[in-house]
Amino acid sequence: MTDSAATRSDAPLERPDTAAPVMEWDAWGVGEFRKQLSPQVLTLLSAALGVSAEQSPPPAESAVTLRPTTLTDDHRSGIVAIVGADHVRTDDATRLRHAGGKSTPDLLRRKDTEAQDAPDAVVLPGSHDEVLALLRWCAAESVAVVPFGGGTSVVGGVDPDRGGFAEVIALDLRRLDALVGLDPVSGIAVLQAGVTGPQAEQLLGAHGFSLGHFPQSFQFATIGGFAATRSSGQASAGYGRFDDMVQRVRVATPAGELDLGRAPASAAGPDLRELFVGSEGTFGIITEVAVRVHPTPETTAYQGWSFPDFATGAAALRTVIQTGATPTVMRLSDEAETGLNLALAGDIGGSSPTAGCLAITTFEGTQAHAKARYDEAFALLTAAGGTALGEQPARDWEHGRFDAPYLRDALLNAGAIVETLETATTWSNLSALKAAVTTALTESLTAQGTPALVMCHISHTYPTGASLYFTVVCGQAADPLAQWAAAKKAAGDAIVSVGATITHHHAVGRDHRPWMAAEIGELGGRVLRAVKDAVDPTGILNPGKLIP
Amino acid sequence: MTDSAATRSDAPLERPDTAAPVMEWDAWGVGEFRKQLSPQVLTLLSAALGVSAEQSPPPAESAVTLRPTTLTDDHRSGIVAIVGADHVRTDDATRLRHAGGKSTPDLLRRKDTEAQDAPDAVVLPGSHDEVLALLRWCAAESVAVVPFGGGTSVVGGVDPDRGGFAEVIALDLRRLDALVGLDPVSGIAVLQAGVTGPQAEQLLGAHGFSLGHFPQSFQFATIGGFAATRSSGQASAGYGRFDDMVQRVRVATPAGELDLGRAPASAAGPDLRELFVGSEGTFGIITEVAVRVHPTPETTAYQGWSFPDFATGAAALRTVIQTGATPTVMRLSDEAETGLNLALAGDIGGSSPTAGCLAITTFEGTQAHAKARYDEAFALLTAAGGTALGEQPARDWEHGRFDAPYLRDALLNAGAIVETLETATTWSNLSALKAAVTTALTESLTAQGTPALVMCHISHTYPTGASLYFTVVCGQAADPLAQWAAAKKAAGDAIVSVGATITHHHAVGRDHRPWMAAEIGELGGRVLRAVKDAVDPTGILNPGKLIP
Repeated sequence: MTDSAATRSDAPLERPDTAAPVMEWDAWGVGEFRKQLSPQVLTLLSAALGVSAEQSPPPAESAVTLRPTTLTDDHRSGIVAIVGADHVRTDDATRLRHAGGKSTPDLLRRKDTEAQDAPDAVVLPGSHDEVLALLRWCAAESVAVVPFGGGTSVVGGVDPDRGGFAEVIALDLRRLDALVGLDPVSGIAVLQAGVTGPQAEQLLGAHGFSLGHFPQSFQFATIGGFAATRSSGQASAGYGRFDDMVQRVRVATPAGELDLGRAPASAAGPDLRELFVGSEGTFGIITEVAVRVHPTPETTAYQGWSFPDFATGAAALRTVIQTGATPTVMRLSDEAETGLNLALAGDIGGSSPTAGCLAITTFEGTQAHAKARYDEAFALLTAAGGTALGEQPARDWEHGRFDAPYLRDALLNAGAIVETLETATTWSNLSALKAAVTTALTESLTAQGTPALVMCHISHTYPTGASLYFTVVCGQAADPLAQWAAAKKAAGDAIVSVGATITHHHAVGRDHRPWMAAEIGELGGRVLRAVKDAVDPTGILNPGKLIP
Repeated sequence: MTDSAATRSDAPLERPDTAAPVMEWDAWGVGEFRKQLSPQVLTLLSAALGVSAEQSPPPAESAVTLRPTTLTDDHRSGIVAIVGADHVRTDDATRLRHAGGKSTPDLLRRKDTEAQDAPDAVVLPGSHDEVLALLRWCAAESVAVVPFGGGTSVVGGVDPDRGGFAEVIALDLRRLDALVGLDPVSGIAVLQAGVTGPQAEQLLGAHGFSLGHFPQSFQFATIGGFAATRSSGQASAGYGRFDDMVQRVRVATPAGELDLGRAPASAAGPDLRELFVGSEGTFGIITEVAVRVHPTPETTAYQGWSFPDFATGAAALRTVIQTGATPTVMRLSDEAETGLNLALAGDIGGSSPTAGCLAITTFEGTQAHAKARYDEAFALLTAAGGTALGEQPARDWEHGRFDAPYLRDALLNAGAIVETLETATTWSNLSALKAAVTTALTESLTAQGTPALVMCHISHTYPTGASLYFTVVCGQAADPLAQWAAAKKAAGDAIVSVGATITHHHAVGRDHRPWMAAEIGELGGRVLRAVKDAVDPTGILNPGKLIP
């Protein structure tokens, strides 16, 4: 296949100024940003949810034991022959940092001092061809492979599941961190899979461009992971979901390679890009992605809003997106989330309203474009019952938008369970979905003796519907893993029962797999397995994930 | 699976006021709209291309012979048991009207008085369940099935290819013509597959909504066909391609049924909707589609533009779409198309400019939205070198926008070859693509002794690229089928060689199948065949189409 000049370049690879950080083994992110809870918050937790801070301190890394590696010397030599000795790691520190993702259950499991599961080796290929060679070798040698980008999965997507094989490796893509090419006329950048969010912005920013993909995981997650999991960023109203941005994917599979996507749009049959985007490492490993990028915005307009209640706010957002007056960011917190955020910010009694629901809008682009959108949306939101709060709430939100997972770690260590889950449905079904999930979570946790605070926001809107993102806070029960598993099952069943999707942007992984049959039907599952057999006939790729 | 209330309704089916028209057996559309060529045009054809009007008149329908049906009595009874005797047709008039689509080669073949191929029966199921039962029966009895909507394919998509089976039926979906449900809050309508473009607008218009999908085939093509072929309408800038509009598809296959799409957006693995959308009847038959609809626009603003040359015009369109100041319709004709259209309209020397390139923009929506977009785009197009021509060129284009295929028939009968083809690529590759295709067509046809006029327009724009639509006019050679096949092969090879997609909105069918391996690679072809084996294990569905 001849490559389009627009999406492949012979220019030298451009690499980021700084390597991607490695996240803490037992917490989100990097230690310097760890949060302390204020006495006010601890009092609130105790008073509202009965959470006691008298927890035993989490174990030190030295107290953690891993199941020893089962990688044979022959197999180690085989892998070294492909990637070099420097890029095969079997030390416990590296294995522990690839033992799972960053869901609350993951973090609870990491702190377990019983022997933990972990990949038998962490392998760091340096090129697409090395990935392809590794997959062929692993298929021939019956070694399972778990692709690993930023390790930010919250659905068990990077669990080191052996799937019946004797060995499993984590295939860490961090060395694939280059900007391969940039087509400034078409607004297309080709990025290797291991480029992180900040690295992408740095590489593109040097040329006056931005990707504009800012999910909660932005600081650590990778381009390949965004594509493999159908990530959606906070600016999705303006720039689309990551799957919308993907122009082309290059995929290595045990059966060979694929290079899919030859135009911005095509009628050349089924869109196979859409089969590999979202395949979560079960069909192949995405090594390179051509993505839509845009010029660094000339300006950003900010506006915060207050709505008397969630239904009014949701209807207002709906009017804006259906009219086409699309902001770059548009989100709406429900009454509970609005209240708690103000409480955590210590802003109760301040200038912001403490009742009702807070919404955030931002508008990026050229001066003329941002102003036109701002003016149109301002009129629509006002007419729909919104009260403009000025710039500050939107600027505050932007300033703190990557902090929530750090706060979760602090709350976990204070004896609380904090976890999130998300879904999406049509506008007409949104209220029923919100009620069903809230009820399921509340009833499950209350029945377990841990009354919960359930908060919700809309963070992604479409002409036909929206996502709902729930945050749950409650006290830890004696077995917090079992406690959350029961609540999660209740929520997932509720989502399916009202006809919503089991995940809007967290992906399926291991945790949502029980509901995949409800999502795509029995025959849909057979179709996925048929594709899997064609590209991964021995089944080494990410066992136990996604495919029902 | 529980259905979302939003996309399925228990309300009674609403049916259109008028049945879909049946197109002429030997021409596009219906006879009352047939066009006569003016003496001026005939003179132009003769002078510019040496086309002589001294052709023998096309044959009458009574002069056409069809290969006799091979449907056995047993098989006829089997089908009658499923759909009823009234809905199984084996008469020659019906078979002839299902013998192919409406490409220029199709029309040339229809006029052949040698025995023509045709389906052995035309079967008209009345429900999803009947389609499902038919497919199971056909799989068991080894009868090939060609799904048939409006019959507007221009790529051989409805050719009655037996694929090694003794019998083939055309499965005509015209009885599935109902609006199943409408969710006005979410803007989602559920339409059966056989609803035509005008029927959809009538059914939705009664509720104050519009689909806004206006491809050239609008007057005859169907919802199921739009989905199965990834149709793209003239208002795609505003309302998206048809594949963008699809929320949910219900598909009958020999292996069972699928109901795909549970939310406006999802991260629940590969998007299987995108595997069945565009599957052209080779994986199953789409019986029902939930589509995004919008309120009937309050207003439409029109503006025509003149650009000094195609490159300047294309750069202007690019600026508009990349900035986000998106019109509802935005198209640009090249110098040749601009000149010929003016010549055909008898407008040479009139008020419109005769040099340069004509562009059309329209802006629909609420008053505020249309005005905001109009103002922003007006400023951008002016700054990019455009001269505003006022409303009239855009209104004239809208008035005549479904006429071109009728003109083609008149030109064919006057001894010309007229055919179209289309592709898409990135903005940076657009000029190279246009040059390569124009050169390939011109050189191929000139070498065959029939110098050609090759015209081109951009009719679909995206932030990263655009479509190119070519119209070719030349004199008919002694064997016009072979003449066009050679030109088409040269154009297809040129498209592939510059890295563009082999089709932007005409689909693959039989005619583009030779280039599918170049489009998706060898492994991509294996993936398609694996899916096919899972849903159509005996291979009865639309043999010879799409899958390489």
